[in-house]
Amino acid sequence: MPRALITLTTDFGHSDYFTGAMKGVIKSIAPTAEIVDITHDIAAHRIEEAAFVFDQAWRCFPKKTVHVVVVDPGVGTQRRPILVQAAGQSFLAPDNGVLGLILSREKCVVREITADRYFRKPVSQTFHGRDVFAPAAAHLAKGVPPARFGGRIADAFRPALAAVQRTGKRTWSGSILKIDRFGNLITSLPAADFPLIRTNPFELAVGLERVQLLAQNYEQADPGELFVIEGSAGFLEVSVRRASAANLLKVGAGAPVELTIW
Amino acid sequence: MPRALITLTTDFGHSDYFTGAMKGVIKSIAPTAEIVDITHDIAAHRIEEAAFVFDQAWRCFPKKTVHVVVVDPGVGTQRRPILVQAAGQSFLAPDNGVLGLILSREKCVVREITADRYFRKPVSQTFHGRDVFAPAAAHLAKGVPPARFGGRIADAFRPALAAVQRTGKRTWSGSILKIDRFGNLITSLPAADFPLIRTNPFELAVGLERVQLLAQNYEQADPGELFVIEGSAGFLEVSVRRASAANLLKVGAGAPVELTIW
Amino acid sequence: MPRALITLTTDFGHSDYFTGAMKGVIKSIAPTAEIVDITHDIAAHRIEEAAFVFDQAWRCFPKKTVHVVVVDPGVGTQRRPILVQAAGQSFLAPDNGVLGLILSREKCVVREITADRYFRKPVSQTFHGRDVFAPAAAHLAKGVPPARFGGRIADAFRPALAAVQRTGKRTWSGSILKIDRFGNLITSLPAADFPLIRTNPFELAVGLERVQLLAQNYEQADPGELFVIEGSAGFLEVSVRRASAANLLKVGAGAPVELTIW
Repeated sequence: MPRALITLTTDFGHSDYFTGAMKGVIKSIAPTAEIVDITHDIAAHRIEEAAFVFDQAWRCFPKKTVHVVVVDPGVGTQRRPILVQAAGQSFLAPDNGVLGLILSREKCVVREITADRYFRKPVSQTFHGRDVFAPAAAHLAKGVPPARFGGRIADAFRPALAAVQRTGKRTWSGSILKIDRFGNLITSLPAADFPLIRTNPFELAVGLERVQLLAQNYEQADPGELFVIEGSAGFLEVSVRRASAANLLKVGAGAPVELTIW
Repeated sequence: MPRALITLTTDFGHSDYFTGAMKGVIKSIAPTAEIVDITHDIAAHRIEEAAFVFDQAWRCFPKKTVHVVVVDPGVGTQRRPILVQAAGQSFLAPDNGVLGLILSREKCVVREITADRYFRKPVSQTFHGRDVFAPAAAHLAKGVPPARFGGRIADAFRPALAAVQRTGKRTWSGSILKIDRFGNLITSLPAADFPLIRTNPFELAVGLERVQLLAQNYEQADPGELFVIEGSAGFLEVSVRRASAANLLKVGAGAPVELTIW
Repeated sequence: MPRALITLTTDFGHSDYFTGAMKGVIKSIAPTAEIVDITHDIAAHRIEEAAFVFDQAWRCFPKKTVHVVVVDPGVGTQRRPILVQAAGQSFLAPDNGVLGLILSREKCVVREITADRYFRKPVSQTFHGRDVFAPAAAHLAKGVPPARFGGRIADAFRPALAAVQRTGKRTWSGSILKIDRFGNLITSLPAADFPLIRTNPFELAVGLERVQLLAQNYEQADPGELFVIEGSAGFLEVSVRRASAANLLKVGAGAPVELTIW
């Protein structure tokens, strides 16, 4: 019989007591729950980055998984802790947009977490990962019904998604969502929306370069040659063979890209 | 029925075989034990930092947890491996002060680990995490009684704690214990000892600045404005909104602070 | 009863969705399997480094462990995914040399993984960790017989090992395999092959220095003094007390070393 599964996604890094404290709180409340780290290396306070990274990970997990996502610059303010249920899984996070992709795309039941009997006491001003989200997730994983955590709300924060804009008959603009560990630029352009790049001449403008090559894998291009590839997140990416496209192009997350297809 | 729980806290980083080898040794001896990483990113050889970080984490774990703490610049010298029992939990570490906060504050039974039948053979000169601490922890988690690991000792190393000194009628001096991932400065000044800062004018001198603002959360101050906040570790911290106070102040762990309350 | 154990070794780092996605895929297929991270911080695309680090870790794990090793610059090309069985354990990896030390030293049964019914669909061009190796490992851990994954092959890639060369009556040359987190230089010279350094004068030339001291532990030398030590991986290492030998010597992985024993 599988044990309850709780995942953690934070910007807490690995050198502090933050993630260890959260794990201890969880194991104290739900000793048989299993904890899986998704990432703790979201850049500090980068809510959009966390939303993107987490959205690529949670879809791979089984039903009933409980996900805790804490990128929370507003900790201690009036921002609400929320519990979202969607796609058979549960999500606990601050209501700051970090679950924005789920809220926008999935059928969701959203509750404000108000039942402080499930919190660690006293609740600190600065670490609700340990004092609110971890204990609430552990109680949920142990079987406490969602309704016990608080009432439903309809106004959870849904940030505008990084949209693709059609800027001309043959042109679309987007942006860089994330630089990955290898220096690949993950753009906001969904690969499925641009099948024509497989057959037609195209140009992806990014930084000072215009990329015109489509590759099927990372080894197909010549060393130093920039290329576009359909990435594993479902978006067009800009890469260079065994080197960092981000270093070569000197661009970062948020930089604009423009695609032209003839 | 929960499984035995073993936590790991080291300065081994994430890019070597060190933590993987320890985990393999544990799972070979105690296959049903569960391993939880607290941190492996303690700065190399920084015993005081490890003591502080670990002290904030272990208190969140349930009784019977077995903690392994290996920050061990003296590995292979005469420094002793010890097994400490306190607060219903167990702690294995070199006797170099890394468990100093527990030894100073908790009622402890301390043993020198001498029973080499619980070691991995041969014991290397440089990696007792794999050869001494991990296998001993696994045997302990499997139910070997503590007394089997070695005799009790009374002279375990208790380093002087980073103390707060009263330096005048209205002034106290302390130091920076840790810079956290967000650049917050965690001072050695316990928040509970200075409730007057909530009501009276005060000044915390750190680096070249004098901080006079107390905030309830990270969003309360203006951008760029330094403030004091009661941190989740129970100490006064110096922060700046959505930026790194450490970068702004150009101070690091160990730097002095002075608090004046009128 | 212990649960199936699956380890992960990759160059995916910690800030992307890569490892989280692999873990989710595994838990979706094999909910009771336990996942242990060995390392995700292999330098990007460094196959030799991964082979060395992983070889030091897997030997510590119990029989029946399933290991997934994904350092895979050739993902999406014709390079084959392979399943290796050796020493009672199982190994899934690209056939690019990352399992070279196992293939060269152990009695192995090697299969090409071709049974795409065990893959995640659709298989991306760039992330076989998620789409091929993680799901195949999970099915294997659940009890699918190895033969179901594909036929045996005899031509798996066995790269030339970093060899020690005898270059004179009293001299041997090797190289730096890895710089560890502490800045120790792990050479390719097996400590067991050079017992004479314990009794005879010797000199290890590395960078611009000639090291003539053998130490039993890291505290035995004076500050700033370079020394040779028999490391926990079984190789001679070059170290300096509580500092980084790599920084001092300005050398990196791959740099040549020459040992002379009189």
